[in-house]
Amino acid sequence: MTTVKAYASPSSSEDLIPTTIERRAVGPHDVLIEIKFAGICHSDIHTVRGDWGPQQYPLVPGHEIAGVVTEVGSAVTKHKVGDRVGVGCMVNSCRECANCLNGDEQYCLKGMVGTYGAEDRDGTITQGGYSTHVVVTEHFVVSIPDGLELDVAAPLLCAGITTYSPLHRWGAGPGKKVAVVGLGGLGHMAVKLAAAMGAEVTVLSQSLKKQEDGLRLGATSYFATSDPGTFEQLAGSFDLIINTVSASIDISAYLQLLTLDGALVNVGAPAEPLPVNAFALIGGRRSFAGSMIGGIPETQEMLNFCAEHGIGADIEVIPAGKINDAYERVLASDVRYRFVIDTATL
Amino acid sequence: MTTVKAYASPSSSEDLIPTTIERRAVGPHDVLIEIKFAGICHSDIHTVRGDWGPQQYPLVPGHEIAGVVTEVGSAVTKHKVGDRVGVGCMVNSCRECANCLNGDEQYCLKGMVGTYGAEDRDGTITQGGYSTHVVVTEHFVVSIPDGLELDVAAPLLCAGITTYSPLHRWGAGPGKKVAVVGLGGLGHMAVKLAAAMGAEVTVLSQSLKKQEDGLRLGATSYFATSDPGTFEQLAGSFDLIINTVSASIDISAYLQLLTLDGALVNVGAPAEPLPVNAFALIGGRRSFAGSMIGGIPETQEMLNFCAEHGIGADIEVIPAGKINDAYERVLASDVRYRFVIDTATL
Repeated sequence: MTTVKAYASPSSSEDLIPTTIERRAVGPHDVLIEIKFAGICHSDIHTVRGDWGPQQYPLVPGHEIAGVVTEVGSAVTKHKVGDRVGVGCMVNSCRECANCLNGDEQYCLKGMVGTYGAEDRDGTITQGGYSTHVVVTEHFVVSIPDGLELDVAAPLLCAGITTYSPLHRWGAGPGKKVAVVGLGGLGHMAVKLAAAMGAEVTVLSQSLKKQEDGLRLGATSYFATSDPGTFEQLAGSFDLIINTVSASIDISAYLQLLTLDGALVNVGAPAEPLPVNAFALIGGRRSFAGSMIGGIPETQEMLNFCAEHGIGADIEVIPAGKINDAYERVLASDVRYRFVIDTATL
Repeated sequence: MTTVKAYASPSSSEDLIPTTIERRAVGPHDVLIEIKFAGICHSDIHTVRGDWGPQQYPLVPGHEIAGVVTEVGSAVTKHKVGDRVGVGCMVNSCRECANCLNGDEQYCLKGMVGTYGAEDRDGTITQGGYSTHVVVTEHFVVSIPDGLELDVAAPLLCAGITTYSPLHRWGAGPGKKVAVVGLGGLGHMAVKLAAAMGAEVTVLSQSLKKQEDGLRLGATSYFATSDPGTFEQLAGSFDLIINTVSASIDISAYLQLLTLDGALVNVGAPAEPLPVNAFALIGGRRSFAGSMIGGIPETQEMLNFCAEHGIGADIEVIPAGKINDAYERVLASDVRYRFVIDTATL
């Protein structure tokens, strides 16, 4: 066991505070990572505030981790001391079920273990990336290729893979028209990735406030969804729509924007059920689908793709002391497009 | 123009009555068909009763047509006099748009022309198959292979293709587990077709009333959806669910029965939007999709498949005088599994 510095939420209603936590001793298959940067994901806020169910406190959030390996267990073969590595939304799974064996560890039939606030397979509660160090079993540690800086790579471990996976799986590429709903942390990555895959990218955002950004990030069109004319104009246009908005939107209206055989893929989930007009599906053999992060092999593939295409997240690096301010700014959509904590300031 | 016998609905609130209607002269690309059998589809009842919008009356329903060619236009190449042929839910489309050119005429971007109650491209209102003859442009006339009797083939033109298309498109076959929701006209075809494709078929029906039939038709399992234990027992089981029920069902509960990457395809559409829990999609990368009949090439493929596998509909042949009784029995789910009108009795 090692005592390391961290920022933790003491309860669902208090600000995060500096603290120390214990990390387990490095086992044969473990990697000890000195965390350099940790992204702040909107879901960190939901989780620590108990929006998604009760938590055990103190809780250290953070599942967009980039750092350097400082120690490896005796049986580790995938990483070595000095390697630049990342950890995303999960740190364990059964490794034996059909989904795990297929590289879809996020859909482990026995339940994957989240990077923080989850019961690990040894019974301990995981603690996340707002910390100086973390010990993770090597399989769930991915390599960050040389071309990628660690700070802009950190958000790729959640925002990147969450959008890369459905884009790749639903065939975003040359000749395909892709719309991205919402230009936040996830949306800005979806735009960059879809454009790099060769698709023609449109942003569908509440307003035109971030239009310049959207075009700079790689979109060729940008429409305000507050304008009803948008839905008439774009009817039957897109092969794929990635919805990054977790609030309730009028799914049936967006389905009408799909071409024949098109798919609308949600990567977030509002708490309330979404009313879907079955005619909108049947009338174009359309699909309404969902996708959750991505598997470990696919996460590595995504990082390699990003390195090859020079893609990192657009970030604002903050010291640990600004975490609580950053939370308020995330809630106010005042971030372009991801806060990343410099863990040297912990 | 030719005057032919038919059964028509005089208004949305009256019984169907015997009458005569005019069929257009056989144009260069037209085929005159002597109708032998016409299936009664649940949607006939909805349409004549105005449930799906106002209609022009008198209206002759019927879009499950099987008969014999008695005359062909000068330019017709696809059919000849004496051929056994069928006509399904559509009799025209633009033939020029991307979807038409791709054999997806049902999704014609200018709108396909329904077999009855629709404005044809010459401005006339189409009249359906409860009639002794019909004139149809050759492209929308399919061949009924020798192995198939005309009476059991008639329902294939709607119930058959409506279920064949999504089964085929979503990969029903050996090693795949397919569930069919509802064992009516469409459901019984879905079971036969999925079993013939080599899939392992389960029926999910309100009760176990038709269990014996379901197993005889090719299902290996049969569950009552009125039993909440069914949803626990079958969680994560199916690669594909074909929902043939047009009434509102709890889609989110059925989505949970899908395995990773599974799809639930609606072939009917309730008037009210269906509430969908996005977690049910995201939690298994699942899709909720819709499918509408099938294209003309696919309809021919389906008929060939049925002939090859000895598949026809389970029917009860009725004389024209029983049409109104049959409607009441369809509404009471008292038919196993399709009424077919013997048009010699018109």
